[in-house]
Amino acid sequence: MFHAKIKSEVLKGIVDVVSTLVDEAKFNMNADGFDLKAVDPAHVAMIEMNVEKGAFEEFTADETELGIDLDKIKEVLRLARSGDIIEMKQDEEKNRLVLNVGNITRRMNLVDITGMSDPRVPNLSLPAMVEVTSDELQKGIRAAESVSDHIALTATPEDFEMYSEGDTDSATLRLPKELLLSLECEEQVKSLFPLDYFSNMVRSIPAGSAVSINLGSDYPVKLEFEIADKKGSVRYLLAPRIESD
Amino acid sequence: MFHAKIKSEVLKGIVDVVSTLVDEAKFNMNADGFDLKAVDPAHVAMIEMNVEKGAFEEFTADETELGIDLDKIKEVLRLARSGDIIEMKQDEEKNRLVLNVGNITRRMNLVDITGMSDPRVPNLSLPAMVEVTSDELQKGIRAAESVSDHIALTATPEDFEMYSEGDTDSATLRLPKELLLSLECEEQVKSLFPLDYFSNMVRSIPAGSAVSINLGSDYPVKLEFEIADKKGSVRYLLAPRIESD
Amino acid sequence: MFHAKIKSEVLKGIVDVVSTLVDEAKFNMNADGFDLKAVDPAHVAMIEMNVEKGAFEEFTADETELGIDLDKIKEVLRLARSGDIIEMKQDEEKNRLVLNVGNITRRMNLVDITGMSDPRVPNLSLPAMVEVTSDELQKGIRAAESVSDHIALTATPEDFEMYSEGDTDSATLRLPKELLLSLECEEQVKSLFPLDYFSNMVRSIPAGSAVSINLGSDYPVKLEFEIADKKGSVRYLLAPRIESD
Repeated sequence: MFHAKIKSEVLKGIVDVVSTLVDEAKFNMNADGFDLKAVDPAHVAMIEMNVEKGAFEEFTADETELGIDLDKIKEVLRLARSGDIIEMKQDEEKNRLVLNVGNITRRMNLVDITGMSDPRVPNLSLPAMVEVTSDELQKGIRAAESVSDHIALTATPEDFEMYSEGDTDSATLRLPKELLLSLECEEQVKSLFPLDYFSNMVRSIPAGSAVSINLGSDYPVKLEFEIADKKGSVRYLLAPRIESD
Repeated sequence: MFHAKIKSEVLKGIVDVVSTLVDEAKFNMNADGFDLKAVDPAHVAMIEMNVEKGAFEEFTADETELGIDLDKIKEVLRLARSGDIIEMKQDEEKNRLVLNVGNITRRMNLVDITGMSDPRVPNLSLPAMVEVTSDELQKGIRAAESVSDHIALTATPEDFEMYSEGDTDSATLRLPKELLLSLECEEQVKSLFPLDYFSNMVRSIPAGSAVSINLGSDYPVKLEFEIADKKGSVRYLLAPRIESD
Repeated sequence: MFHAKIKSEVLKGIVDVVSTLVDEAKFNMNADGFDLKAVDPAHVAMIEMNVEKGAFEEFTADETELGIDLDKIKEVLRLARSGDIIEMKQDEEKNRLVLNVGNITRRMNLVDITGMSDPRVPNLSLPAMVEVTSDELQKGIRAAESVSDHIALTATPEDFEMYSEGDTDSATLRLPKELLLSLECEEQVKSLFPLDYFSNMVRSIPAGSAVSINLGSDYPVKLEFEIADKKGSVRYLLAPRIESD
């Protein structure tokens, strides 16, 4: 059983972050909220998300798993204005999700969750931690976009750098310690990532958010940030590309 | 002979409503204004329009028929700002229409009207009448769009409903009596319509207008509304799709 | 050696005007600023530009020629906001141009200038001179666009006219003397031009600028205007199409 009401912009934030990696996802509901783990189809990136019931206006749920088509939720969100309340109700008999916005009712079949097992989250020990606003990350991504389809993230005890290099051009965003929210780094670490994945992840982070970046050398990067007015948290993991020198 | 001046936004309203169904139309001018009847190329929908001379800033016309390419009028409208006056003059000798906006003069050949006869408007007896704002209709259409390419309109003595059903999903906008401008319905009637036609028709209605919808069971729907600051009226007819159960 | 700082919107104005005709250009730098001459690949149009060092916030240059890929400068401009200062520095050792905006550094190879000789500017004696705002030119171009891919410019002692004629339609913008900034014309002159070139040139002129148009009969047109807050000047030349009667 699942029955909840949620502000449209909060639901939109949740959906944006998940749909960056997958079109359909299994939401594990319980009395306190929900969590979710998913891996993108190419097995390059992973998302872990927890949202407390406090992110909802109303929330009642038994322990249950709901397979949800995120594109359909987006369609409903397009019918709502910011501030509108969206009611979500599980119709257990018909295995459907029923959404209400104002006078509009939208019924959608739940997605088959057979085979949608929760992926195992790898246990990573990442030596460097950089805390930065999502706006700075956006800036670095925009500088990189025309130059290459890869981006190198480097942390040193002094700064954090986003660097892209093409055949004839390069682009660098260098953020010295003073422009970071915090920096923990004993010695330089550097990893290279596919720009499209990294860019999509960063784009889904609410504007003005603090993002904590855990980084190693030729290791996955972990991005952590809060959503739903601090009632939810997200961890993205992205696998590195190994540089051939 | 035809010579008139009209505010660009009034002319735009007229053109938008007609060009929803046809690219070219025969305007029947007379001393009091003009009327127009047209059927779309697929013979699914029909428009009837009357506009009084009072919708124009100046208006002089003999009884005459003008074949007008609506896309060309749209091009001229793109050169005008809201509030601009557009002058239209028939050049009988060269069989052209001459439009002036500010210092710009646009001359266009009139379209051959041979064979553009006025269609016969069917005499329909439609038992239900719903009056509603165009904004509510827009909302129902947006909800339906991602679900199906058909939309069912239902009137009961209690409410008006727009309903779409796809393979796995459905969308409903239910407007109870209190949210309607008026409702006359003795017993439930329901007809199914092609969504693209219905959506285009509704989109051409000025925002915030009152629309009167005449409805039967498996019968055409008739939409009536006013344009040109109540100096013009439009009736759209749209043929139903018969539901196969 | 070249090292300069410039406001992003000034650099954008310069790049827009040049990139209308060419993707890459040779900038001839000297202690007082730079000049540039270029012909479009089809040899239909030419640009001559002079910009004083006063257009820059800081400017130091030896006499040197820099081959610059204008698309790359545009990419950097997209990273800047209006008011941002862009630093440009030649890296002579690596034959690169290094641009800085805020914390972003963009390095780009200079373009090979072998064979990019300065074109010879023809010595034209054009009998008529019309001075007009770029906004009026824009209006005339928009009127012409849907009618033909040519535009005729006519000056008489009384007015300036932009005229386009297609198979069935024509569009005219007539600007009588009173709507022009100035008019010097002893007898009617008229030339026909390719609309796409003329339109692109006019579009690159800063909005609200005064443009001086030098015109003859079946002769090239010369457009002159100022950029960079009057610290730079541009001359465009466009070859006529000869009308076949």
